[in-house]
Amino acid sequence: MTLPSIDGQRLWSDLMNLATIGALPHGGCDRLALTLADVAARNLFTHWCTEAGLAVTIDAIGNIFARFEGTDPSLPPVLMGSHLDTQSPGGKFDGPLGVLAALEGIRTLTRAGLRPRRSIEVVNWTNEEGARFTPGLMGSAVFTGVLDLDTVYATKDKAGQTVAAALAQLYARDPALRGGRAVDSYLELHIEQGDRLQIAGRTIGVVTGSEYNCFADIECFGANGHAQATPMAQRVNALAAAAELIAAIERIGRRHAPAGSAGVAVLDVWPNNRINIPHHARLTYAATHPDRTGMAAIRDEIAEAARGIASETGVRIEVAAPPDRDAVNFDPELAAMVTGIAAELGLSSMELRTRAGHDAIRMAPYCPTQMIFVPCKDGISHSEFEHCTPEDAAAGANVLLRAAYRLANRPIQ
Amino acid sequence: MTLPSIDGQRLWSDLMNLATIGALPHGGCDRLALTLADVAARNLFTHWCTEAGLAVTIDAIGNIFARFEGTDPSLPPVLMGSHLDTQSPGGKFDGPLGVLAALEGIRTLTRAGLRPRRSIEVVNWTNEEGARFTPGLMGSAVFTGVLDLDTVYATKDKAGQTVAAALAQLYARDPALRGGRAVDSYLELHIEQGDRLQIAGRTIGVVTGSEYNCFADIECFGANGHAQATPMAQRVNALAAAAELIAAIERIGRRHAPAGSAGVAVLDVWPNNRINIPHHARLTYAATHPDRTGMAAIRDEIAEAARGIASETGVRIEVAAPPDRDAVNFDPELAAMVTGIAAELGLSSMELRTRAGHDAIRMAPYCPTQMIFVPCKDGISHSEFEHCTPEDAAAGANVLLRAAYRLANRPIQ
Repeated sequence: MTLPSIDGQRLWSDLMNLATIGALPHGGCDRLALTLADVAARNLFTHWCTEAGLAVTIDAIGNIFARFEGTDPSLPPVLMGSHLDTQSPGGKFDGPLGVLAALEGIRTLTRAGLRPRRSIEVVNWTNEEGARFTPGLMGSAVFTGVLDLDTVYATKDKAGQTVAAALAQLYARDPALRGGRAVDSYLELHIEQGDRLQIAGRTIGVVTGSEYNCFADIECFGANGHAQATPMAQRVNALAAAAELIAAIERIGRRHAPAGSAGVAVLDVWPNNRINIPHHARLTYAATHPDRTGMAAIRDEIAEAARGIASETGVRIEVAAPPDRDAVNFDPELAAMVTGIAAELGLSSMELRTRAGHDAIRMAPYCPTQMIFVPCKDGISHSEFEHCTPEDAAAGANVLLRAAYRLANRPIQ
Repeated sequence: MTLPSIDGQRLWSDLMNLATIGALPHGGCDRLALTLADVAARNLFTHWCTEAGLAVTIDAIGNIFARFEGTDPSLPPVLMGSHLDTQSPGGKFDGPLGVLAALEGIRTLTRAGLRPRRSIEVVNWTNEEGARFTPGLMGSAVFTGVLDLDTVYATKDKAGQTVAAALAQLYARDPALRGGRAVDSYLELHIEQGDRLQIAGRTIGVVTGSEYNCFADIECFGANGHAQATPMAQRVNALAAAAELIAAIERIGRRHAPAGSAGVAVLDVWPNNRINIPHHARLTYAATHPDRTGMAAIRDEIAEAARGIASETGVRIEVAAPPDRDAVNFDPELAAMVTGIAAELGLSSMELRTRAGHDAIRMAPYCPTQMIFVPCKDGISHSEFEHCTPEDAAAGANVLLRAAYRLANRPIQ
């Protein structure tokens, strides 16, 4: 049986329509989780799902499930999706591509009058980005039991609003739908957020798993003083020490490239006033490496740099040591299936691992899981200039649909 | 005629009482301008002034004037004072010493039944610190016509509240009292905020003027990207470049020490999210030098460092070039008078210049002006650990009173 192709124009049109919600001047989007813009995007998506004849349910954390009923509704469903929230600023594709391609896949089945054995559900996970409420992968973590719902409800953004308050203020959902349920398998289409596909000239990335990564906070403690009158020899400037360390971490990241990476994206300073030498600075570094030993080396070098800077400057430096997020492996059988589907469609493909976090990483221990990447221009993401071509978006959506349909139709074992 | 000594115990008691308003756990104070704590301190001060029989007026920007009428009220008054607002965190002495010593000086005259020819007024200037509303020296700048009142009214703090709104919300004043009026002379007692008196073992600093100083903003523009997935070679991290520059400015400051200084106390980062490489960082450096050429050298070296870092990192760096705040000279005759008074009281003294900004710098072009410094422990200020001994505070207050009384009593020329 040959499936028809998805409607690439409709998919592109949906992506561009959605991107008007929270649109930014240079082509990006600002839809932080559970803001007015995120909720507007959710509502538009829900409207499209209803229009497509799907039954929509929204669980207690705000995850949206749009169900296309299979011929045997008693079987656990195949899930496919991603997220509609973005960074601030973010792009048009990181997240929405996986959600809207899944929806267009279902529409394609409907148009062809095809109904698989298992139900297929399109999912939008709440707060994948973690840009407003930390950590990210929040909705999928609650679904899979990695995070406790009540703990997540109490999580605050920088303005002090909790997840529970944000949901209560803006978003109707079913508070009785707490946590997960039986799922057959999970598929997620996403832009690569790197340039390996572009460099290799391949269209489909068959993601075999994730890399080791960590986020660690570093606190620097100096001493307040007058920023003009304090003699230089007596200054213990927490910001100056943090600056030395940020520069050192960037150098360490570049030394471990291209396999590994390390860098600082966050710095807060107290009192952050131009007349008062700072007594406190807090930064967070992110590091990635495909190997456990490589990650350990990066972390050791950062800790060593911190010790040296503390000893030179007199600033006390505390480096947190949270455990690595271990590499996760996706399902090898699903990877082989996706590679096969790409070949059948005449699309070039290659295997790779993801450096970025994705809801699929939460799903992998929960059910057979597979991610599909398509190229993004120059590896740019979390940026207004993030771009994916309509052709690659459609190619990814066709692979996604075929994988989901095959999983949904396979015999009951 | 010999003046009696001020009551050192009363002065110390006033300082300690005032320091309970906005008190911090390690002995400091947090009384940002026109906050509830600042207003409480103003109200306590005003109560003490009224108790001492002084007539209090409050001008449109909130400057408080407490008048001890002279025998010829038609003559312009001698002003003495400083400010009650603090940094956040700040200490107990930076500001309050000059205000409360002036008040205790007036009480000393009253107790002795002495009334000078000219009136003497104790002044509390609004927002000397500039920690909440920029720039500092705000009240004295409005009084002397350096800043326009309506412009100052529209100045916003980081939360978006204007000076006008803060005043309207918390503080009753006379809106008709706009700007300055004739003043005979201005005296300000202050802690040194450096360690030159302590090192030299002198009690009284006769301040001959200020040094060259500048504050300049530097903007760094990079490119957003995923903080884990973007290949190191493609990252253009505005924070990493800002960090290199902050470290370079600290090195430049130390190279020019002890005469000069340079450092960074403020850094803001966008979007300051751990998953998003920053596209924008803004820092402000402060630099000081006694000579114009020294200041120019510091500024040139910072600009040169910025060019080098921009060229290495690909981050665009814009260095603002506001004019230096030129060194101001106080009145040499008043300096000689203060040196003489110190000698008469058996107090050691030395001449020095101030690196920090003070309301006296605004007053110097307006009327004959003189500052008096007393030692502060280890040069520490703008800190909870700021300290001045009761003996030094009293010594400074005695010099201040004698200088004011002599100016107020001198013949009409």
